[in-house]
Amino acid sequence: MTLNPADESLAARLPKGVLREVSPAYLEEPRGRYFGQAGLVAAPRDVEEAAAVVRACAEMRVPVVPRGGGTGLVGGQIMPEGPAPLVLSLERMTAIRGLYADEGVMLAEAGATLQQARDAAAGVGRQFPLSLAAQGTAQIGGVLSTNAGGVNVLRYGNARALCLGVEAVLPSGEIMHDLKRLRKDNTGYDLRDLLIGAEGTLGVITAASLALAPVPAETGVAMLVVESPEAALQLLSLAQARMAGGVTAFELIAGEGLDFLADHFPQVRQPLDPRPEWMVLVEVGLPAGLAADAALEGLFVAGAEAGLVSDGVIAQSGQQAAEFWSMREHIPEANRAVGAIASHDISLPLSEIAGFIRDAGAILASMGDMRINCFGHLGDGNLHYNLFPARGRHRDEYDDLRRELSGRIHEMVVTRGGSFSAEHGVGRLKTGDLARWGDPARLAAMRAIKQALDPAGIMNPGAILPMPT
Amino acid sequence: MTLNPADESLAARLPKGVLREVSPAYLEEPRGRYFGQAGLVAAPRDVEEAAAVVRACAEMRVPVVPRGGGTGLVGGQIMPEGPAPLVLSLERMTAIRGLYADEGVMLAEAGATLQQARDAAAGVGRQFPLSLAAQGTAQIGGVLSTNAGGVNVLRYGNARALCLGVEAVLPSGEIMHDLKRLRKDNTGYDLRDLLIGAEGTLGVITAASLALAPVPAETGVAMLVVESPEAALQLLSLAQARMAGGVTAFELIAGEGLDFLADHFPQVRQPLDPRPEWMVLVEVGLPAGLAADAALEGLFVAGAEAGLVSDGVIAQSGQQAAEFWSMREHIPEANRAVGAIASHDISLPLSEIAGFIRDAGAILASMGDMRINCFGHLGDGNLHYNLFPARGRHRDEYDDLRRELSGRIHEMVVTRGGSFSAEHGVGRLKTGDLARWGDPARLAAMRAIKQALDPAGIMNPGAILPMPT
Repeated sequence: MTLNPADESLAARLPKGVLREVSPAYLEEPRGRYFGQAGLVAAPRDVEEAAAVVRACAEMRVPVVPRGGGTGLVGGQIMPEGPAPLVLSLERMTAIRGLYADEGVMLAEAGATLQQARDAAAGVGRQFPLSLAAQGTAQIGGVLSTNAGGVNVLRYGNARALCLGVEAVLPSGEIMHDLKRLRKDNTGYDLRDLLIGAEGTLGVITAASLALAPVPAETGVAMLVVESPEAALQLLSLAQARMAGGVTAFELIAGEGLDFLADHFPQVRQPLDPRPEWMVLVEVGLPAGLAADAALEGLFVAGAEAGLVSDGVIAQSGQQAAEFWSMREHIPEANRAVGAIASHDISLPLSEIAGFIRDAGAILASMGDMRINCFGHLGDGNLHYNLFPARGRHRDEYDDLRRELSGRIHEMVVTRGGSFSAEHGVGRLKTGDLARWGDPARLAAMRAIKQALDPAGIMNPGAILPMPT
Repeated sequence: MTLNPADESLAARLPKGVLREVSPAYLEEPRGRYFGQAGLVAAPRDVEEAAAVVRACAEMRVPVVPRGGGTGLVGGQIMPEGPAPLVLSLERMTAIRGLYADEGVMLAEAGATLQQARDAAAGVGRQFPLSLAAQGTAQIGGVLSTNAGGVNVLRYGNARALCLGVEAVLPSGEIMHDLKRLRKDNTGYDLRDLLIGAEGTLGVITAASLALAPVPAETGVAMLVVESPEAALQLLSLAQARMAGGVTAFELIAGEGLDFLADHFPQVRQPLDPRPEWMVLVEVGLPAGLAADAALEGLFVAGAEAGLVSDGVIAQSGQQAAEFWSMREHIPEANRAVGAIASHDISLPLSEIAGFIRDAGAILASMGDMRINCFGHLGDGNLHYNLFPARGRHRDEYDDLRRELSGRIHEMVVTRGGSFSAEHGVGRLKTGDLARWGDPARLAAMRAIKQALDPAGIMNPGAILPMPT
């Protein structure tokens, strides 16, 4: 490859063989909002090389943009402005360094995909219980740096809850060795959790000690029709009490989403007829000795007696369970086919959800003619609240309205004690929201920490905190 | 009360009515290793008063020692040297500000005792599943500041895992409002987890949003005799797989501890005869439809078939279950009655435990004539590894050996990838261990963060990090 003189000077300081051809894949992100600047891409083979790359960039004051699978939705992996950065790709650090089935621990390098980590755990009879649509591409380092969520947070927590320790390169180029296989370790400040969710602005995670969970002896899935989001929440409460917290997923699905599916993926079977206005997909993981279909049947009966559930279907086989999940997982694809005006990854206190859905629907109706597909991880209070053009209209017709719509939605969410970013992070897309809605003392502390750990400001500048001007 | 002139100058800046009489209780800690300096005690009634206290101390450069229930075991609550500090007691901030049963969330002020929080949760049919011996006195603020553990970490995590958000006064005197009732909130750096476990050195937690769990429909307890710690770990693996992770406690108990009990608490019933060399106390929380005694019976049979369990008894009533727990909880009291030479709150990767117990026993035997009571939260890899004088000898006879014994044990632990402080924290007792065994890059980052958030060094100086000289 040919380099410009500025790049050459940096390239000369990098470890041999780490430079990669810049391809469009390094400069793009899934929603096409941000485009990266052409520059250097380095892919270290081990943590020492990663540290050498960061040290070279620190010396030359070249920004470093860490890159995992590139599946993030808020532009954290793309630096579109400012001095051209070096992209530090973890793609070559993909080893599973250790698998300790009896401990329930796995040591994985940052470039291993989430699917690879899940498969490795399954190979020793355990599970790595983080599951999300992009898992075939998303990498462990990115999953941790963004504290990713997904469908099993209700039972197993976010990525943060599944990480016991990290190895990371700090902005100084020093390596932090903290890959402990421990459930308890109270020896000073929680640097691990500070790096998790910092979106590459405080350092680069190069490997992680991950907590595995036992595979439940019995698992089952049901789709249950509920009258309203409020009924769904009461059903969740009932389910949690009956299952001793063994509800592994509790997903809300709106009739609008089922319509989108019918329009764009007619081949995806919809087991409930007539099409419900609201439904939930419930998954449980249970001990030996309690059949999952019996437990779900019991939940259905109790829910019906309480007036919460009007219809439902329990998967009778693993294949049927997979079909139910396939339906849920096609909803984001159907959304893309329809073409959203605006998407919102929000969370709310559970008891605020029903009121939010009601009020937001009314306010949006007064602002324009739209369709709303509100779905998501109800058990976590995490809704994907997405707006679509009315039938026969195109998203471009709403260009003037988009900003105002998102502003109003985030305002309604924050007013109710919710978050404008539940699981996707801040990246570059929501730095304005954070500046507007973030607690001032917390923001000041964040800036002080950034300044303390990265005084030269080289790590992923412009993500989370605005780029210094 | 009468004050000396230096105190008077500070007192004049404090909010009216916050000063307390200094009583010995503020200057002592449970193990009697550290004694506080006489000085001022302030007990704010709300977060604004707490902030005013910290601001006054920041202006006057007076150290602030936050104080909860004072049950910590590592001297974090006592500042024995340096300029006389102000003790900031949370004792008046005891309100449960909110209880959201259907959300599984409670807002508690820092001065509420752990028992009070547990009772409040139970009052609405939920549980706050952090449980430890000192819960009647320990306060929520202290429990969080030390990231306390206890007996149910295996299922529910440490204090950190049970906290959704905090309200805190930062060293600047600013109030950080982050009391969110959210399971998912990815909006920047994880200040919450940084304050949790910081032992009051980065600010004072004044209230917390706590996660409640459903009360399992079925619970049960058993005592099972195992041949060795290794067999106990294999039994744990078997139990986790059978119970879908529903094992809520898995406590290792050594024959030595049972001897101590028999000697000093003969009234505590020991259900197993003959006295086993090793046993585990297993507690499970299960869904509706699966009787706990049947599930434990199934575990016993499977464990026996695998050659892991040789005898056992399953509690047949709530009263009997309470008796089993009472036996476990009397072990630390029996230890105090015997009088330990040295105690160690250590954790190890699970697969290192058996080897550690074997090797450490051999090495200690070569160092002197001692008894070892090794017990604790095996499921978390957390052992309380305590050394006692041989029969007929007194702990004082081992004074010359104490330092060397602890040094050797911590070295063995760290060499095996373990921690010299699993759940008690660093405080002032283990600053030397942290300096010696801590990762250099992690320590440097800790110092940078301390300097950034508390440039004047007023918050609990000398805890975790050594006092600047």
